[in-house]
Amino acid sequence: MPVNLPEINPALLAPIQGIRLGWAESNIKQPNRKDLLVIEIAKGSTVSGVFTQNRFCAAPVTLCKKHLVTVKNNDRTSIKALVINTGNANAGTGEQGMLDAQTTCQSLAEIMAIPVESILPFSTGVILEHLPMNKLLAGLPHAVANLTTNNWADAAWAIMTTDVAPKAYSTTVQIGTEQVTITGISKGAGMIHPNMATMLGYIATDANITQSLLDEITKEIADLSFNCISVDGDTSTNDSFIVIATGKSKTAVINERNDEGFKAIYDALLETAQYLAKAIVRDGEGATKFLTITVKGALSIEEAKAIGFSIGKSPLVKTAMFASDPNLGRVLAAIGYASRECKSLDDLDTEQLELYFGEVLVAEKGGRAINYQEEEGQAIMNEAEIDITVQLHRGNEDATIWSCDFSYDYVKINAEYRT
Amino acid sequence: MPVNLPEINPALLAPIQGIRLGWAESNIKQPNRKDLLVIEIAKGSTVSGVFTQNRFCAAPVTLCKKHLVTVKNNDRTSIKALVINTGNANAGTGEQGMLDAQTTCQSLAEIMAIPVESILPFSTGVILEHLPMNKLLAGLPHAVANLTTNNWADAAWAIMTTDVAPKAYSTTVQIGTEQVTITGISKGAGMIHPNMATMLGYIATDANITQSLLDEITKEIADLSFNCISVDGDTSTNDSFIVIATGKSKTAVINERNDEGFKAIYDALLETAQYLAKAIVRDGEGATKFLTITVKGALSIEEAKAIGFSIGKSPLVKTAMFASDPNLGRVLAAIGYASRECKSLDDLDTEQLELYFGEVLVAEKGGRAINYQEEEGQAIMNEAEIDITVQLHRGNEDATIWSCDFSYDYVKINAEYRT
Repeated sequence: MPVNLPEINPALLAPIQGIRLGWAESNIKQPNRKDLLVIEIAKGSTVSGVFTQNRFCAAPVTLCKKHLVTVKNNDRTSIKALVINTGNANAGTGEQGMLDAQTTCQSLAEIMAIPVESILPFSTGVILEHLPMNKLLAGLPHAVANLTTNNWADAAWAIMTTDVAPKAYSTTVQIGTEQVTITGISKGAGMIHPNMATMLGYIATDANITQSLLDEITKEIADLSFNCISVDGDTSTNDSFIVIATGKSKTAVINERNDEGFKAIYDALLETAQYLAKAIVRDGEGATKFLTITVKGALSIEEAKAIGFSIGKSPLVKTAMFASDPNLGRVLAAIGYASRECKSLDDLDTEQLELYFGEVLVAEKGGRAINYQEEEGQAIMNEAEIDITVQLHRGNEDATIWSCDFSYDYVKINAEYRT
Repeated sequence: MPVNLPEINPALLAPIQGIRLGWAESNIKQPNRKDLLVIEIAKGSTVSGVFTQNRFCAAPVTLCKKHLVTVKNNDRTSIKALVINTGNANAGTGEQGMLDAQTTCQSLAEIMAIPVESILPFSTGVILEHLPMNKLLAGLPHAVANLTTNNWADAAWAIMTTDVAPKAYSTTVQIGTEQVTITGISKGAGMIHPNMATMLGYIATDANITQSLLDEITKEIADLSFNCISVDGDTSTNDSFIVIATGKSKTAVINERNDEGFKAIYDALLETAQYLAKAIVRDGEGATKFLTITVKGALSIEEAKAIGFSIGKSPLVKTAMFASDPNLGRVLAAIGYASRECKSLDDLDTEQLELYFGEVLVAEKGGRAINYQEEEGQAIMNEAEIDITVQLHRGNEDATIWSCDFSYDYVKINAEYRT
């Protein structure tokens, strides 16, 4: 079961003016489940995306990037629809995969009477198998037929793969006398160590944000949310994160960071992205613990993140967490080898750093803290939410990453995934 | 059970003239097991070592490095003994840990009547707990009392931690009319992703190799053996690899690479080191499969190793291997994100590479190979020894790394280690 992930309440997922969502059961991997989603985006919206850095980037990701560039170079078009299937990632599928992604867009373009390059395609699921195109194409008219503004909860269900629970979040911001609404969904439970964006994450707002500013903050927000999580250290071939600003609220256009409302909207977008990113970790394959790892006093954010991920990815740390074992040794060892991924840590002075489990100082001066009693660490480990903090005392940069434990069920889920 | 690791046969472990080994049961972590080892090294031997790059380097490792430098700067002394305890790593133990390592050397120096700086100390086992010095010091006279040339098998037992089986290897080389003998032992099963050397590895030969040449080849051999293995991606705080050349055989001094016998002895040392390194993976915690991952046609050895380790460390690949699942998608995804650790792979062309399971071409041109039948991949996955080969077609550098699968027992062993 996911770790402290509240069930989504459809009534609390606010519609976003300018966004309609429609789904279908198209039998891509298994029958009787929502596996196809179309998101319609009103004219005049701005759309930004960040994508996986995996060199085996999936065909739909390649096509997404191409369409986003085409649209940016042509003032007369904009992104008008997203199409997302689950059950098959269309990754590692060669030329046929690219044709399949194009055919998907072409078919939806005809149904919706919009330009093919105004459509962004996404796929998630098993790798290296070709999309069952007949099933997918047959589902598209059904998805378009039930487009409605109220479908956010169903949309969250429709993009799930090994997820146990759907992930969605909604919030509002008051700007002067007007209200801006933000709603988002995400999916992902395994192959999670995003290197640019998440598995799949979509956030829409009715705020009015210019394209160039939206591009800028989408990257920033991804770096502070989906790029701060790890379930298993594996970076997917399909990671994508999309932010849509429909501009349908009555608030003024936001073009610069000191425009009215920017800060509040930025914070709400970040809050939404972080909630959705953490939801992926809470639903991490086999997870029983949710780890928040904060590294303070680094020379750079890269150093702080390298140490955070070194701890958060270590199978020894993760199995100790599963066992509720306050094994500081494994955490210290993981800090010690973080220099493998960040050269500036070669001169890390381990005598200077402090390690905390929750609020308890457990290690300092290169060893166990003098007053530390293992019962205190044990009490913290017994919880489902575990905070680990490392204070390096060598600079002013901080970072927080989120991870989960490694359980029998992780092995079970991944050893049986294709059977 | 270890994967295809033959039981050691004490009769086949050849003594090395100039080396005597003695052990004790000193009750460091548990009673009635060999947990303390002394290796006596005859005068005139050369000794080289490479050590962990973990910044939380253990106290004995720090002292080893210091004594090796002291000896090199002083022609009148040389390394005369190694002392190794298991059950406690004396890592993350601060000032007290350093005092304990010094006290261990001091005590042994008195018993053996040799200079304290001629002793190299090693510890392995649980981290962040202080050495039980009374027990350890009480064991030293017993270990010295049973020093004998025939104790290599007992020595392999005496350095084990979570190892299921002892690891040892012996070979001989004919140089003209004379014979050179090489015997080595290693230990390690978890926290295995060496970054300079292994957990613990000791190889001795009666060849006569000068100090500078031994230093050079020790580093090279470590890079081609212990630095090519991964069990869990965790780099230990105590990794150490020592090569001793006693010079007691009747062969001539070897000072340069083109001296007679160099090539044969180098190859035999490398063979021994690779056997011992692979033995650690075969006995990897919970391992049921032994993976040999070869990457060919890279621009650099770093590229080849980065891809090899990206595959060999991936929890998704490792759980698929446990399930005997020919899941090429996960292997391709791991290749695709290897650029996270090796920037030159940012321009890796995935259309050009070929992936083989055993001799079977399973993927090419960015997707599944046209003639590949899953039954063929399945047959290979059903074996305990699985070869994975990646041909990148972008350069002339190759590397091989060895890894194992990820099983329920891995989680079990590591969740219960301290209980």
